[in-house]
Amino acid sequence: MSINTFGHLFRVTTWGESHGPALGAAVDGCPPGIAIDESMLQHWLDLRKPGTSKYTTQRREPDAVKILSGVFEGQTTGTPVQLMIENTDQRSKDYSEIMEKFRPGHADITYWQKYGIRDYRGGGRSSARETAARVAAGGLARAALSALAPEIEIQGFMTQIGPHGIDRSRFDAGQIGQNPFWCPDAHAAEAWAGYMDALRKSGNSVGAIIEVVAKGVPAGLGAPIYGKLDTDLTAAMMSINAVKGVEIGEGMAAALLTGEENADEIFIGPDGKPVYSSNHAGGILGGISTGQDIVVRFAVKPTSSILKTRATITKSGEAAEIITKGRHDPCVGIRAVPVAEAMMACVILDHILLNRGQIGGAVGETRGRIG
Amino acid sequence: MSINTFGHLFRVTTWGESHGPALGAAVDGCPPGIAIDESMLQHWLDLRKPGTSKYTTQRREPDAVKILSGVFEGQTTGTPVQLMIENTDQRSKDYSEIMEKFRPGHADITYWQKYGIRDYRGGGRSSARETAARVAAGGLARAALSALAPEIEIQGFMTQIGPHGIDRSRFDAGQIGQNPFWCPDAHAAEAWAGYMDALRKSGNSVGAIIEVVAKGVPAGLGAPIYGKLDTDLTAAMMSINAVKGVEIGEGMAAALLTGEENADEIFIGPDGKPVYSSNHAGGILGGISTGQDIVVRFAVKPTSSILKTRATITKSGEAAEIITKGRHDPCVGIRAVPVAEAMMACVILDHILLNRGQIGGAVGETRGRIG
Amino acid sequence: MSINTFGHLFRVTTWGESHGPALGAAVDGCPPGIAIDESMLQHWLDLRKPGTSKYTTQRREPDAVKILSGVFEGQTTGTPVQLMIENTDQRSKDYSEIMEKFRPGHADITYWQKYGIRDYRGGGRSSARETAARVAAGGLARAALSALAPEIEIQGFMTQIGPHGIDRSRFDAGQIGQNPFWCPDAHAAEAWAGYMDALRKSGNSVGAIIEVVAKGVPAGLGAPIYGKLDTDLTAAMMSINAVKGVEIGEGMAAALLTGEENADEIFIGPDGKPVYSSNHAGGILGGISTGQDIVVRFAVKPTSSILKTRATITKSGEAAEIITKGRHDPCVGIRAVPVAEAMMACVILDHILLNRGQIGGAVGETRGRIG
Amino acid sequence: MSINTFGHLFRVTTWGESHGPALGAAVDGCPPGIAIDESMLQHWLDLRKPGTSKYTTQRREPDAVKILSGVFEGQTTGTPVQLMIENTDQRSKDYSEIMEKFRPGHADITYWQKYGIRDYRGGGRSSARETAARVAAGGLARAALSALAPEIEIQGFMTQIGPHGIDRSRFDAGQIGQNPFWCPDAHAAEAWAGYMDALRKSGNSVGAIIEVVAKGVPAGLGAPIYGKLDTDLTAAMMSINAVKGVEIGEGMAAALLTGEENADEIFIGPDGKPVYSSNHAGGILGGISTGQDIVVRFAVKPTSSILKTRATITKSGEAAEIITKGRHDPCVGIRAVPVAEAMMACVILDHILLNRGQIGGAVGETRGRIG
Repeated sequence: MSINTFGHLFRVTTWGESHGPALGAAVDGCPPGIAIDESMLQHWLDLRKPGTSKYTTQRREPDAVKILSGVFEGQTTGTPVQLMIENTDQRSKDYSEIMEKFRPGHADITYWQKYGIRDYRGGGRSSARETAARVAAGGLARAALSALAPEIEIQGFMTQIGPHGIDRSRFDAGQIGQNPFWCPDAHAAEAWAGYMDALRKSGNSVGAIIEVVAKGVPAGLGAPIYGKLDTDLTAAMMSINAVKGVEIGEGMAAALLTGEENADEIFIGPDGKPVYSSNHAGGILGGISTGQDIVVRFAVKPTSSILKTRATITKSGEAAEIITKGRHDPCVGIRAVPVAEAMMACVILDHILLNRGQIGGAVGETRGRIG
Repeated sequence: MSINTFGHLFRVTTWGESHGPALGAAVDGCPPGIAIDESMLQHWLDLRKPGTSKYTTQRREPDAVKILSGVFEGQTTGTPVQLMIENTDQRSKDYSEIMEKFRPGHADITYWQKYGIRDYRGGGRSSARETAARVAAGGLARAALSALAPEIEIQGFMTQIGPHGIDRSRFDAGQIGQNPFWCPDAHAAEAWAGYMDALRKSGNSVGAIIEVVAKGVPAGLGAPIYGKLDTDLTAAMMSINAVKGVEIGEGMAAALLTGEENADEIFIGPDGKPVYSSNHAGGILGGISTGQDIVVRFAVKPTSSILKTRATITKSGEAAEIITKGRHDPCVGIRAVPVAEAMMACVILDHILLNRGQIGGAVGETRGRIG
Repeated sequence: MSINTFGHLFRVTTWGESHGPALGAAVDGCPPGIAIDESMLQHWLDLRKPGTSKYTTQRREPDAVKILSGVFEGQTTGTPVQLMIENTDQRSKDYSEIMEKFRPGHADITYWQKYGIRDYRGGGRSSARETAARVAAGGLARAALSALAPEIEIQGFMTQIGPHGIDRSRFDAGQIGQNPFWCPDAHAAEAWAGYMDALRKSGNSVGAIIEVVAKGVPAGLGAPIYGKLDTDLTAAMMSINAVKGVEIGEGMAAALLTGEENADEIFIGPDGKPVYSSNHAGGILGGISTGQDIVVRFAVKPTSSILKTRATITKSGEAAEIITKGRHDPCVGIRAVPVAEAMMACVILDHILLNRGQIGGAVGETRGRIG
Repeated sequence: MSINTFGHLFRVTTWGESHGPALGAAVDGCPPGIAIDESMLQHWLDLRKPGTSKYTTQRREPDAVKILSGVFEGQTTGTPVQLMIENTDQRSKDYSEIMEKFRPGHADITYWQKYGIRDYRGGGRSSARETAARVAAGGLARAALSALAPEIEIQGFMTQIGPHGIDRSRFDAGQIGQNPFWCPDAHAAEAWAGYMDALRKSGNSVGAIIEVVAKGVPAGLGAPIYGKLDTDLTAAMMSINAVKGVEIGEGMAAALLTGEENADEIFIGPDGKPVYSSNHAGGILGGISTGQDIVVRFAVKPTSSILKTRATITKSGEAAEIITKGRHDPCVGIRAVPVAEAMMACVILDHILLNRGQIGGAVGETRGRIG
C-alpha cells in the first residue's frame, strides 16, 4: 500500500519521481481568499534547490513551480491547488551501476521487495527530490498562515553535523541565512565548512541534527489523543527522507530529568496570559500547544550514496561491491532544513483549521479563559 | 478538534476518562475468524495494571476487560469489536487541590485552554489511564498476528531510568519479566530499585527510555511516503502520554555517523534471503521493513504530579503553589512498556493488512524476488 | 473489510450486534460545551423503539441509553462520547430455523460469504437494530445543532406505503406525530392502517418511501467535489438497512424536466437574501446548500423476514424452503423515519464544523455577500 | 471545506477548473505491476470528449491525457499516478454575461456564497469538465481490474431522455455504441434524435436516466455498515454533476413491492454456486455483493445553461434576467455515461483491494463456502 497524503483538513498529496517528467503536490482544503502567486512559492523552493553550494548535490534543477489550479485572480478559490515542478535534469547515464545492485542503507532493496519494480533512476519515488513538492505546499501553508495568524514565525537551523555541534551561547538567528549550513553559530559554521570539505573530498557523507522552532503559535492547537500536535509534528518530520529520530522540547534527554527539574513552572505575565519559567515541554502539553515556542528536533542519517566501496547483493542474489558515483549530497541534512520548515507550516495550519472547526472562534482564541 | 482513532485498516478508537464510568476501545477492521476471548486480552492488561509493585501508582483497579461486540462463538466476526473496562476506583477526594490550580508539566492547563472544560478528576481524558484501552486493543492485534504471522515476536523493555542505563553486554531477554522494571539487565534492575526507592520517598519522579523490538516482521511492510512504517510507529509512540522523543534504529545518534559507518552492508544468507552486517536502520529503509528486527526507542518524561512544591497559577489567574498528593507513578515510563508493545502490535498488523490489500499474496510474500 | 465510521469531523463509529450484550456509538469530534444528558438522547430513542404499535416488531427493548464518557457536569468535554444501549430481549429460540438457511432478500448469505461467520442471532450486525446507535448519536448531533444553529429544524415523514401515497394537498405537519406511520396526511394514515392490518395478518411485508426535510440550514454547507452535501446525505440514507434509492429535491423525476422547467428562478427577498421561485434542487446546488429547505427522499424495500414460504438454500448447498417466524416489522420503513432524521442531523452538523474550519466565521455566515 | 478525494485504498484526488491551465487526477493506492500507457486511458477519454455529436457541447477539447508519475517501463510502480489533461480551448469571451449574474439551477450562486470567489470562467471547479479527470482515473481502475478480475465487465447506457424511455424488450447491448446516446434500444435512439434536434434548436435542455451494470463481480465485496458497496456506489454517482437521484436494483420502486414479491429466491446452480430467481436487489444484500449483476441507475437533471430567459439576481443583489449563450450540452446526461462507468470501476476496484486486505485470499474467493 502507498499513502501519499498527509494532513487532516489541509491535505497535501505529493506525487512524482526523481527522474519522471514532473513532480508536485495537490493541496486540498486550503482556505479561499489567500493571496498567492508562483513567485511566493518559488522563494521557498530556491532555498531548498540543489546546487546552491558545494555542500549539496551538483544536480542542476531550476525547480520552477507552476500553479495549475485553485488560484484565480491572485487568490486561492477554496478548490484544490495543484503545484507542479518539471524535472529538467534527468541524466540517466549515472545510474547504470545501480540498476542491478542495491545501495546499503538505501530504500533500493525495500522498494524492490515491496513493489517488485526497480525504478533505478535516481531512487524513483524514494528520492529526496520528493521533498521539493513539500516545500511548494509549505509555501502555500505559509501564505495562509500569514493571512490567518501573522504572528507565527517558523525558523529551522542545523545544530549538529557529525560530531560537531553548535554552541548555544553563540546562537544568533541572524546568522542562519549567512552560511550554507543554516547554522546559527558563525563559529561552528566555519568549523563545519572545513569538516565538510574534507568529507566531500573523501567521498563520504555524514549525519546531522536540525531544529525547527515556531514562535507565536497560539495556545490550544492539537487534537488529542491520536492527532496531538506533537504526534503530528513528529510524524511529519519522520516522513522526511533519512530521518531516524525526532524530539519535542527536551526530547530523549527528558529521560534524565526528575519531575522537579522537568516541570515548567507557570506564572502570570503582564498581559494576563500564562508565562513559563522554562520550556522543557517544547511548547506542547498533553498534545496541545501552550503558547510557548514549539521546538522540534530531528536527526538525519548520512546519505547512503557514497564513493566508498561497500558490500551488497544484486537483484539476482549475487554478492557484489558497490560504489555510488553521481551527484549526491554529502550531508542530506542541509537541504532538510527548508523541508522541515515546510512540514511545520503545514501541520500548524492544519491544526488551526481543525481547531476553528470544532472550537469555533477566531485563530488564537481559546475556550477556557484564565483570569 | 479531537481525533481519537488511529490506524488505516485496523482502526482503534479509544474513549473514556480516568474517573468516568468506563473506558475502552472500539476496534474496527479486525479480520474475521480470529480466535479471541476476554482472558487473552486480560493477560496483557494485567501487565499494565496499576499497583503491581511499589514503583507504580497505588490506585487499585482490576482493569477487567469485557468484549461487548464483534466476537461470536470465540471468533471475531469481522464487525467492530468493542472492548470495555469499567472504572471501579474513582476516589474524588484526592483532587480538591487541583480543581483550581494547574499542575506544571501537565495537560491541565492546555485542556482547559482548548476545551474550556476542567475535568479535574484524575486528569480526565489526558490521564495515562487511557492507555489501558490501547493495551486491550493491542491484545486483539496480537491475537490476529498470532494467526496471520505467528513468527512475529514483540518485546519491550526499559533501557534507562534517569541517569542509570543498562549495560547492553549484560542483555538477557529472560530477565525482562523478572523485575518490576522490564529491565533486561539484572544488575541494572537492582540499581534501579535502590534509586527508585529513594526517589519515591522524596516525592519526586523521573524519566525513562523504553525500547521495543519486533522480530520476524517480513520485508515489505510500510506505505510510503506518508504512511511509512517508521512514521506510523513514531506517531504511535509519540501519542503515548509523556513521550518526548522517538528513535528508529540508530536514532538521534545517526547524526554522528558517516555514510560509510552507517551503511548496513548486505549479503545473501544460507536461505537465499538478504542478511545485513548490522542494523543501524532499525529494520526500516525508505519507510519499508527490511526483514531485520524493527527497533523503536522512546523517552518518557518524569510524571508531573509530584510531592514537590512548584509555582503555578489558578484558573482565575492568581499565583499559587502546588504540591500534588495522591497515588501517582514515580516513573510513568514503567507502565509504558506494555503500552508500547500494544501500539507496535497494532501498527504492524495494520501494515500487514494494508500490504495484503495492495500487493496481494500471503503475509510475508514480497512482489520483488531476490535471486 | 468493515468500515463502521461515518462523518468527517463529527465522526460516529457504531458497534454491536442484534443479540450481543450491548450496542452503541462512539462519537468523536463533538464540540465541547454542549449541554446533554441521557434523557435528551432517550427522547429520540423512544421514537424508534420497537413495539410501540402493532405495525412494528413486537420485540420488547427499553433501548435505554447510557453515556459512558465525554460528558462532565452536564456538558460535552470535547473528548469522545461513548453511548451504550444494552440488549435485554435476546430470545434465541426463534432463530433455529435460520441457522442453516439463508433468508431471500436478506444479508444472511452475503455476510456468510464475506466473513465466513454465521451470526444467526437476529441478523447479527446486519440487523436494523444497529440503527438504535445512530439515533443515539443523532440525539447528540441535535443537541449540538440546538446550540450552534438553533434555527435548524429536521422533520421526517412517510409519503408512501406500498401502492398508497399521501396527497400533498392534505399535508399537515401537525399530523406526523399523531399516527403510527409518521404520516402527514390524516386521511392516508387511516387508509394505511387498514392496508397494514391486512398485510400483517397475511404474514407479508411492504416497502415505503420516507422524506426528510431540514429547514433553516444556512447557505454554504457542502464540501465539493467528493464531500458534497447531497453526496453525504445520500450516502447516509443509503447506509440505512433496506434502502434501495435516494433522491434529492426533484430526484429521479428530474429526468423528465426541461431546463426551463427545472430552473429555480432567483429573486431578492425582503431581507436582502436570495429567494427562489421553486425548489426542484432540494436546497442544494453544486453540492452546496442554498438556504432553501433540504429535501431528501428514499425508498425502503419490504422486510425480507416474512411468514410466506420462499425457496432458498442451506449453508451446505441444499435446496430448501424457508418461512421466517419471529417478531419482525411488517414495514421496516416506519422505524426508518427517526433513523433518517438522526442521519440528517449528523451530516448537517458535520458540514457546519467543516465549513467553520475552512471558511471561518460564525455558522450561517457566508464569505460571498450578495448585495 | 473542500474534499476532492474519493476511495478508501484506491484513492482518486481530482483537481482543476474548466478554464485553468490543466486539470487531472492523482491516483494513490493503485497496485504495482499494472500494464498501462496513455493510449489506454485516452480510449476512455475519447468516449466522454465534448463535440463528438451535435447533441453534446461544441467546445473542442482534445482531452489528451499525460501520465506524469507512477508508471515506469509500461507498468504502475505502486506510487501515485498523476494524470494531467491540459485545457486548450479556453475562450473567455462567452462568459461576460455571467460574471455578475447567477444562472438559476447552477452552482454559480452557492460557490459564490461559500467561497466568496466568483470564477465565472465556464463554472470553474463546478464545471462538468472535472469529470474528464474521473474518466482518466477510471481508465486506470479498468486496467487494474483487467489484471486482477478480468471477468468483470462494466457497461453504462441511457434508459430515458425527458419523457422518452427505452423499451426493455428491445434491449440490445450491441446497439449501445452505435448511436450518440448510448442507447440500447435502436428504436428509442431514433426517437431521441428527433426529440433532441427540436430541443436543441429551441435552446432548451432536458434530463435523463442512466443505468450502469457490472457483470462478473464476485460475491463478498462491500464494507458494512458505512462503506457498503451500495453506499459507495450511490455516493460516487451522486457526486457527478447534476445527479439528483440514485437507485440500486429495484430502486425507488422497491417501495411498491411486498416482501413476497421482492425476495430474490435462491437456488444452487450447476457449478455449486448460488443462483437467484430475480435481481430486485441489484446484486447487493446488506451492502455486500451477491455475485449477481450490480445494477445502479441515476437521474441527471437538465443542463441549467440554456438559451431561455430566466429571472435571476446579480452579485450586487439586483433583479435581472439571464439567457446563457455559449456551447452547452442540451442533455448533460449523455456525457455522464462514461463518467458513471469510470466511477463504477473505481469503486469496485477499491472494494476488491479492501476485501483482499481484510479477508485475504485471491479476488473472488470468499471466506464462507456454500456446499
